[in-house]
Amino acid sequence: MSDFSASLKPAEPPAPRILAAERANTNIDVGRLSHHLLHRNGFRERQRRIVDVLENHPLFSKKNNLNMSRPERFHVGLARAKELRRISRRYGWSEDDDRVAEYLLDEVSPFALSNTMFLASLRQQCDDEQRAYWLPKIENWEIVGCYGQTELGHGSNVRGIETEARWNPEGRGYVLHSPHLTAAKWWNGSLGRCANHAVVVAQLMLPDENGVMKSYGPHQFIVQVRDMKTHKPLEGVVIGDIGPKYGYASMDNGYMLFKNFRIPSSALLAKYSRVTESGKYIKPEKPATVYGSLTYARAQIIMQARLVLARAVTIAVRYTLIRRQFRDRDALPNAPEEAVLNYPTVQIRVLPLLATTFALHYTGEAMNEIYSSTRARIEKHNDFSKIAEMHASSSGLKSLCTTLAADGIETCRRALGGHGFGGGSGIISLNNDYLSKPTVEGDNYMITQQTASYLIKRMQKCVKEPSATGTDDADRAFLDFLRTRDRIPEFDVLHSDRDLVAAFQFRASLLAHQAYQARIEEKTPWKRMLIRLHRLSNAHCQAVLVANFYNALATQTPQLGQTTHNVMHALFRLYALSTLEKQAADFLIAGVLLPSHLEGLSSQLQTLLDTVRVHAAALVDAWDIPDYLLSSSLGRYDGDVYSSLFRVAHEENPLNMHTFNSDWRSEEIIMGEGEEHARNRIMALVHGSFGHEQSSPVTSKL
Amino acid sequence: MSDFSASLKPAEPPAPRILAAERANTNIDVGRLSHHLLHRNGFRERQRRIVDVLENHPLFSKKNNLNMSRPERFHVGLARAKELRRISRRYGWSEDDDRVAEYLLDEVSPFALSNTMFLASLRQQCDDEQRAYWLPKIENWEIVGCYGQTELGHGSNVRGIETEARWNPEGRGYVLHSPHLTAAKWWNGSLGRCANHAVVVAQLMLPDENGVMKSYGPHQFIVQVRDMKTHKPLEGVVIGDIGPKYGYASMDNGYMLFKNFRIPSSALLAKYSRVTESGKYIKPEKPATVYGSLTYARAQIIMQARLVLARAVTIAVRYTLIRRQFRDRDALPNAPEEAVLNYPTVQIRVLPLLATTFALHYTGEAMNEIYSSTRARIEKHNDFSKIAEMHASSSGLKSLCTTLAADGIETCRRALGGHGFGGGSGIISLNNDYLSKPTVEGDNYMITQQTASYLIKRMQKCVKEPSATGTDDADRAFLDFLRTRDRIPEFDVLHSDRDLVAAFQFRASLLAHQAYQARIEEKTPWKRMLIRLHRLSNAHCQAVLVANFYNALATQTPQLGQTTHNVMHALFRLYALSTLEKQAADFLIAGVLLPSHLEGLSSQLQTLLDTVRVHAAALVDAWDIPDYLLSSSLGRYDGDVYSSLFRVAHEENPLNMHTFNSDWRSEEIIMGEGEEHARNRIMALVHGSFGHEQSSPVTSKL
Repeated sequence: MSDFSASLKPAEPPAPRILAAERANTNIDVGRLSHHLLHRNGFRERQRRIVDVLENHPLFSKKNNLNMSRPERFHVGLARAKELRRISRRYGWSEDDDRVAEYLLDEVSPFALSNTMFLASLRQQCDDEQRAYWLPKIENWEIVGCYGQTELGHGSNVRGIETEARWNPEGRGYVLHSPHLTAAKWWNGSLGRCANHAVVVAQLMLPDENGVMKSYGPHQFIVQVRDMKTHKPLEGVVIGDIGPKYGYASMDNGYMLFKNFRIPSSALLAKYSRVTESGKYIKPEKPATVYGSLTYARAQIIMQARLVLARAVTIAVRYTLIRRQFRDRDALPNAPEEAVLNYPTVQIRVLPLLATTFALHYTGEAMNEIYSSTRARIEKHNDFSKIAEMHASSSGLKSLCTTLAADGIETCRRALGGHGFGGGSGIISLNNDYLSKPTVEGDNYMITQQTASYLIKRMQKCVKEPSATGTDDADRAFLDFLRTRDRIPEFDVLHSDRDLVAAFQFRASLLAHQAYQARIEEKTPWKRMLIRLHRLSNAHCQAVLVANFYNALATQTPQLGQTTHNVMHALFRLYALSTLEKQAADFLIAGVLLPSHLEGLSSQLQTLLDTVRVHAAALVDAWDIPDYLLSSSLGRYDGDVYSSLFRVAHEENPLNMHTFNSDWRSEEIIMGEGEEHARNRIMALVHGSFGHEQSSPVTSKL
Repeated sequence: MSDFSASLKPAEPPAPRILAAERANTNIDVGRLSHHLLHRNGFRERQRRIVDVLENHPLFSKKNNLNMSRPERFHVGLARAKELRRISRRYGWSEDDDRVAEYLLDEVSPFALSNTMFLASLRQQCDDEQRAYWLPKIENWEIVGCYGQTELGHGSNVRGIETEARWNPEGRGYVLHSPHLTAAKWWNGSLGRCANHAVVVAQLMLPDENGVMKSYGPHQFIVQVRDMKTHKPLEGVVIGDIGPKYGYASMDNGYMLFKNFRIPSSALLAKYSRVTESGKYIKPEKPATVYGSLTYARAQIIMQARLVLARAVTIAVRYTLIRRQFRDRDALPNAPEEAVLNYPTVQIRVLPLLATTFALHYTGEAMNEIYSSTRARIEKHNDFSKIAEMHASSSGLKSLCTTLAADGIETCRRALGGHGFGGGSGIISLNNDYLSKPTVEGDNYMITQQTASYLIKRMQKCVKEPSATGTDDADRAFLDFLRTRDRIPEFDVLHSDRDLVAAFQFRASLLAHQAYQARIEEKTPWKRMLIRLHRLSNAHCQAVLVANFYNALATQTPQLGQTTHNVMHALFRLYALSTLEKQAADFLIAGVLLPSHLEGLSSQLQTLLDTVRVHAAALVDAWDIPDYLLSSSLGRYDGDVYSSLFRVAHEENPLNMHTFNSDWRSEEIIMGEGEEHARNRIMALVHGSFGHEQSSPVTSKL
């Protein structure tokens, strides 16, 4: 819209100049640091190449995303997913390229499950014949698949699922059936409107020796659920989309019920379990070890968490450097207003999260390393020594790291002040989508039991047969602890990095030992221990994060040059000490921190915040989040915050296309549309026009 | 849709029976407790009466809310606001009725600012002539107003605003002007598409004795900004809606720029400041004390916070009572799965928040009491003794209480597991809207400075002239502290309620004394103290919440009968001890808690959780949140969770009206619509059809 606003500029100083000055104020070699963080698998080059394609393609513009309804987001999401597929074919993109494209588009694809969980299940569970039949169909995108495990009444507890696959006495396969409403498959991504095939997890029901049907537990079946031509569900299957969610608007998480739905005997994925022609169950041989693949998957979650958090921190750092608010109370009356990031109450929220992105990075890297080296060691020497511990830690790390990222995003958003509540923040959909992570793939409170349980077992071994313990870090730490616990060692956490790392480990060992005593010696009921088990897992994982960061200071960051190395050292201490301060009670109780240390801790934290503050602009630049991904007026690289906020509102807000009738006496909404027209239109919106097939709000807008 | 799913029922036991059993399992007199909590101003009766109107009116159905786009939400929001106005006239609703209707509709009205901030400003700032002219227009709804203070580049710091009102040398009024883009009014509710009038805050620019224009600081002006007939902005004004936000979809938060826009001299609200006909400024006499109105407003925020949190807790308690997940590790193999609320890791998250709703209640009540009694005392005896402290506390309490509620909502949501991410939780829009609260009306980190600053001054007075101190609770506590600090008193927090209250006060006093020493004695720069000032304010306000809850146990809850009183006592201890545990480091450092207490603290907390768990269903019932407001399949009163989740997805999801073409080779989206049609439709969505006046996605859907 051309009006007098077109000639107005933001007040001095121009925000871009502020950011430029901040960048000029540091000697960090941003390119080198960026390469250090993101070189794996050619990520930066790949990202640049793919961002170029996406941001120049009109279908991938994000400018109206926050204005669309959930159904509209799905329609557009499906169109984008298809176009991405076509582009991928045209450019010959690899699977890694496809993944980076989805990351940059920042919208989960309605096809997402097909080439991930669906494909992975079939790869792992098919026998040779099934592989030969199914895999080419998926790899060539002839079918769209999904993974149907979770049910309306049953989440993580797979053994509780209700869907039944009953052996058909006529010997021609199985009958899938949902005995209750709670047996409805639920949440399954890509199922709601897209998938024509599903891997369905169902109780395998076979006749026992007396002919009575009995469950042999949950098994996987490959099932066609929609007609390939009409795309309608097959007879005997009810399928739909479960409706709007916090995030994931473009994904059709679905539900599915079966009524005596027949499937062939070849539907049972038969690599491990099999059923004879007469309906006899053949027990799986011990499944081949896929040991480590969970570690790999969890490493990916942590690597994703670091980039997600880096995105929020990038926005928070850039904007709070630019934003001016109030003068210091002690300043002269005509002093300029202070940059928000100069306030310690903002620093203490944002800068430890900046440090956390690096902590997450080095632990993700460590897990990747262990995965690779262990694969090699297993293949060459059958040596499993390191993987077990990492494998056990991975549950707790998933829990801690996704919680850190999810909470960190919201902390960053609130640090933005009022504009953090607006669409220009770029944090709304980031938050909404990521809030699924603390729950999916293992609820963050439930899964810490696995880590704690492992630690209790290791502690038991260290107590009972110390000479039989392995070379796990946990064992070594536990043995150290058992040797020294009578006289608590002194930890100079304020001056020695090594002591700081050791203090985290000592506290984790102490909690492990207390849990061991409670469970093994005093036979405390497991349920009564859940709160402390969760704390134990977190304490252990914090020690892992601190140790991996510390190790990187010895082996990796010196190569980045002295300035950068020094800043990384400050980030390490900031991460460790701010974590220690948040958990101070634990450390005080453990005796590794004394109340008299606390004053020194606060002042050292402030010194670290001051150091990191100087380099903050450069440090977030190093994470190299493209503006296209940030999609944030507040966080854009050039810093032109206010012009961007205004332009987006004034030029791209569909609500500003109409003049509204604000007179309450009239039912008219848009000026000139008339009262009756408005009334009908509004009622159609309020009731979703449901029941008027093919004349819904979605299609009739054409 | 009629298909075989219609005859399916959830698996046993039926969820409604579970809730009924929980309700039968407690002797709490829910009706009496509910009356106790909600009798003020006839709230319950009013709520029942108005819910009846709303839930039977088709325009107020919420079923499609989560499916609508942001522009659609605004269209519908405007239609609902107008209809509410008409209904209010028809039924003769009072202002309280209107407010409860908006609360139950749970959607901020595009008219919301007109009868609140706009009206309140005019009431406070108009001279008699202005009052006579403007107030009837607003009270009769002849005009729609808004309050234009915040600017694009300027939030809480009113002195920094850029909009100018320059004295017009021709002597006929002022010229409103926006010198920069950052001067754009921004965020102002009701402005974007609705308001035809605004109170505009602008720098009053008058010529000094040398004829040079100079600012006399921000002043308020009443300004017509839209034509009353065409509803278009007047010439020289640019107005629009700022676009999508985290929540508040139905509100048109707006922006506004002026270009040499003339307004009459009568536009300056002239109760306090005036300008003569020759442009000379007449300084305000000391403005009449509106002392206490802030306390009243903040009491309302806390009373709102308790109901908002009660809503989330109601959903969390009911659903986690119903949901079964896993068996206890120590249970027999065929034991039924455990109710999720039986897990201590769920209890420790949800039940202290249930206790917090009551803590918030008694502090909100106490502030209301102080407000009423102080008004009376001021009017009768000119006695301000209590109000100063409460007034000073109110900033800190706004900060602490809105943070507790905002964080508590998300904690409840995560406790719901997977279904907490779905629309059926009823927590999505609750969270999205409420997330504004930690920032608006004073950022929760900035405003705690006011409370801390007051406490430092009181401590200084207590140290320097103890005999001159008043009767403030803070003074008494500070004097006590100064008398005893050399030998830390013993606090038996685990067995004595009085000691528990005193321990909170001791810690707050200690922090106040340390802050006093740092600032007054050691002259520490204010900025360097911000983190500890925030902590001081929180510690003080936690002590206030604990003390008010404790006082209510003595004066109010005994009337509720022994059973209920005992449960309220457990809730008090749960709130106080769980808060103490979260802040354990502070209490350890203060020496009022010893590491040896910690084991006992954990076990007492578990006992309290067990007690409260028994009565949880009844306690949330007492908050009397109607199903219409909850709008939650998981939290509905009858507990019929799974049928509701399924029915809503299967019968009310517009996405399930269409069959989609999931073949990536085709650009068609809905089966049968054709590729070209789909392509045009999708591109219109992606680009918001901007520029095609009157053929936007919003209107053309008719």
